[in-house]
Amino acid sequence: MNVDALKEIVGEGGWSCSPDELEPHLTEWRDRWRGRTAILLRPRSTQQVADIVKACLAKKISIVPQGGNTGLCGGAIPDDSGQQVLLSLAKMNTIRDVSTTNFSMTVEAGCTLAAVQAAAADVDCQFPLSLAAEGSCQIGGNLSTNAGGINVLRFGTARQQTLGLEVVLPDGNVLHGLKSLRKDTAGYDLKQLFIGAEGTLGVITAATLKMFPAPRDVRTVLMSVRSPDDAVNLLAEMRRAFSDQVQAFELIPARAVNFVLKHISSCRFPLQEPGEWHVLADVAGVREPDAFEELLAGFLESGQANDAVIAKNAAEADELWRLRHGVSEAQKKEGASLKHDVSVPVASVGEFIASATKAVEEEVAGIRVVAFGHVGDGNIHFNLSVPERGDPQKFLAMRKRLAKCVHDIVHELGGSFSAEHGIGQAKREELERYTDPVAVALMRTLKTAIDPFNIMNPGKVI
Amino acid sequence: MNVDALKEIVGEGGWSCSPDELEPHLTEWRDRWRGRTAILLRPRSTQQVADIVKACLAKKISIVPQGGNTGLCGGAIPDDSGQQVLLSLAKMNTIRDVSTTNFSMTVEAGCTLAAVQAAAADVDCQFPLSLAAEGSCQIGGNLSTNAGGINVLRFGTARQQTLGLEVVLPDGNVLHGLKSLRKDTAGYDLKQLFIGAEGTLGVITAATLKMFPAPRDVRTVLMSVRSPDDAVNLLAEMRRAFSDQVQAFELIPARAVNFVLKHISSCRFPLQEPGEWHVLADVAGVREPDAFEELLAGFLESGQANDAVIAKNAAEADELWRLRHGVSEAQKKEGASLKHDVSVPVASVGEFIASATKAVEEEVAGIRVVAFGHVGDGNIHFNLSVPERGDPQKFLAMRKRLAKCVHDIVHELGGSFSAEHGIGQAKREELERYTDPVAVALMRTLKTAIDPFNIMNPGKVI
Repeated sequence: MNVDALKEIVGEGGWSCSPDELEPHLTEWRDRWRGRTAILLRPRSTQQVADIVKACLAKKISIVPQGGNTGLCGGAIPDDSGQQVLLSLAKMNTIRDVSTTNFSMTVEAGCTLAAVQAAAADVDCQFPLSLAAEGSCQIGGNLSTNAGGINVLRFGTARQQTLGLEVVLPDGNVLHGLKSLRKDTAGYDLKQLFIGAEGTLGVITAATLKMFPAPRDVRTVLMSVRSPDDAVNLLAEMRRAFSDQVQAFELIPARAVNFVLKHISSCRFPLQEPGEWHVLADVAGVREPDAFEELLAGFLESGQANDAVIAKNAAEADELWRLRHGVSEAQKKEGASLKHDVSVPVASVGEFIASATKAVEEEVAGIRVVAFGHVGDGNIHFNLSVPERGDPQKFLAMRKRLAKCVHDIVHELGGSFSAEHGIGQAKREELERYTDPVAVALMRTLKTAIDPFNIMNPGKVI
Repeated sequence: MNVDALKEIVGEGGWSCSPDELEPHLTEWRDRWRGRTAILLRPRSTQQVADIVKACLAKKISIVPQGGNTGLCGGAIPDDSGQQVLLSLAKMNTIRDVSTTNFSMTVEAGCTLAAVQAAAADVDCQFPLSLAAEGSCQIGGNLSTNAGGINVLRFGTARQQTLGLEVVLPDGNVLHGLKSLRKDTAGYDLKQLFIGAEGTLGVITAATLKMFPAPRDVRTVLMSVRSPDDAVNLLAEMRRAFSDQVQAFELIPARAVNFVLKHISSCRFPLQEPGEWHVLADVAGVREPDAFEELLAGFLESGQANDAVIAKNAAEADELWRLRHGVSEAQKKEGASLKHDVSVPVASVGEFIASATKAVEEEVAGIRVVAFGHVGDGNIHFNLSVPERGDPQKFLAMRKRLAKCVHDIVHELGGSFSAEHGIGQAKREELERYTDPVAVALMRTLKTAIDPFNIMNPGKVI
């Protein structure tokens, strides 16, 4: 492939063909996918991206957009043909504009999520999207995957936090949609197409995002509860009692707590004794700590919670959150694991966890289920650890079978086999299996209409 | 046109060709658009809608979906060929499901917005979408136009309140998308296409909507301020001070107050003297009325507000809101008027009102500007009354010229000529004039791909 024209577009420093430099861009961080590429391009402007797309279209060369390469489904990894061009947005990392009066900011796709959060915090605001990879993932990738994370309960996913998008279309034209309006019914809302499309319909180059006032008077509380059903009921009670200011509501099972305490020495457990299940919640706007404690005391009295501890300060809140954030790392140290990022209606969380646990335990005796996560969104990370002293290879070989087991139950409950991680290369089979054929056909219609030569991230999603 | 096949699909009571029955469906309520139709169909089920679409597709007959016929842009009125089929969703008005644990409900398109709100209120929840026509508009129409109203500031437009949709596509297939999930990244989010498409891409037959806990401890306050800029700054302060629990924030100019007090005898004005501008705000979650009053007192001391009155009870709050809700009716009684439903970035509201007022006053000496509305969303109803003793017909003949005057300024400020009313038949020219040609081309691509025979509400939007 002749890539000279592409080199010319981006100029010195804007491309690389060096195997060492390419390596981290060609490997998914958990090493589940590897690819090859003709060239890595690092454009510095929207115009350069448009020129690249036009040049590629002329030669029918396909393009794989990449942000921080922190995805979990291989959506940003090229195939192994070596013919695809890898388009990194990393050098487009300017915060273009921040408005405290409009509570909005315009940022380029290559800004890390942490940089976006920081730019909001600098003006006493918050950009509430928050997830484990926030230090290295990029906002363009967050939007392309409609990222979720811990604050969806109150603020919605990346989609709900987006006011406008600038997108380079598969024909190289630029869609100038960086509006910062709260209401706009001037024709079809085109930005919605590109959010969550994983780069298959165009390249997001910049976005105008909502900001919110920095949260005040946030209280963090850890409670033990008897069951996931009790957690879900407690969530409903808390949403009602605290004026819908519950910002995060996470479920943590006893096994996860045990893993964390065993493997992460900096973590400690503040309740007198671990329960079977725990919820960790952030509530904002708590002006009267006494009234807050009283309400929680009510939950203890009524048996809706068994035990509770309220963080007395930010350090204690961090400590509670470390318990939650340590779950993935701790589970990794327990040996081979298989992950399922699923969602069900919040009301069905309990039924899902019970049924899926039973089903996988029947498949693999001694399997260790760790079902945790964003119960406030019905989004459970249903992760499975190899049995103690089990053979990890034999266990990992069960990947497909266990996934089907879990996803079948999710599907029956009206849930999704992909809550917040997307499809990428990983879940195309699931998309076909579990999605309404009418919907799949319509997705294909859209893809073909917008990208008729299939140059935008082919082999992903659809 | 032979409509026997269509009559058979819906059966007895499911259709009408009687001029008397048709009349209210063929006239826009302000009488700006009138149409004709071959037959009015009132299907009772999604299957009937699908069968109608298939039958129409076979004969290339076009279909105009209609909800409560309360739209302001003629989007639900057929053309005058008499060849289009009018499809009323009114008989599909079942609340299919309400879940307080999942905070969601599934409703059919023909439910009135008030019925949806009431179903939520019945279980101590709220469906926050709220607008003047809520007693008769239907949720299918609200979704098709991505309706806004007074609570967008906190809850977003109809789009943000939608979890899933059931849609009959232009090929007669049914898209079964009634999911009630908070997170779902399983492929393209197809429902987004149909929200705000005004029936040009398919017929929405049912929706799964978010509910929220019923608001508690809501305080309503009316304040006078010096200028729209002061109102915008006050909004930012209040969002910060009240944990972003400002649910509504409306701007009312002195002229609107005068019109209301003159024409609506049940309204009274509770401040000692009217200011030039006023804001009416609802704040939820006010547990400590004293602290609330103290914060407002601070605004008075700092000069951010000149005067303020807090409603002491629900009756007083209603009275304050009657002032706001009376503006349209009062302005009607002042004689001929021209309306502009526009939005700009919230930060530009002051500049917009000043520039647009100057511009229209230069066009028509004595014109009476009434700029009011949802300042919290940057959505101003920039309405113009005929000069006192002016000729109404001469004034109304200026419609296009004044609209261009206003919309040009909106456009320069990065705003939208259609904030919450949509395009319909009314604003197709504006869509072409003010929208990025790349965006318009992409809208056409979508329309052609999804509705290749242009049978879904042709002549609307695009």
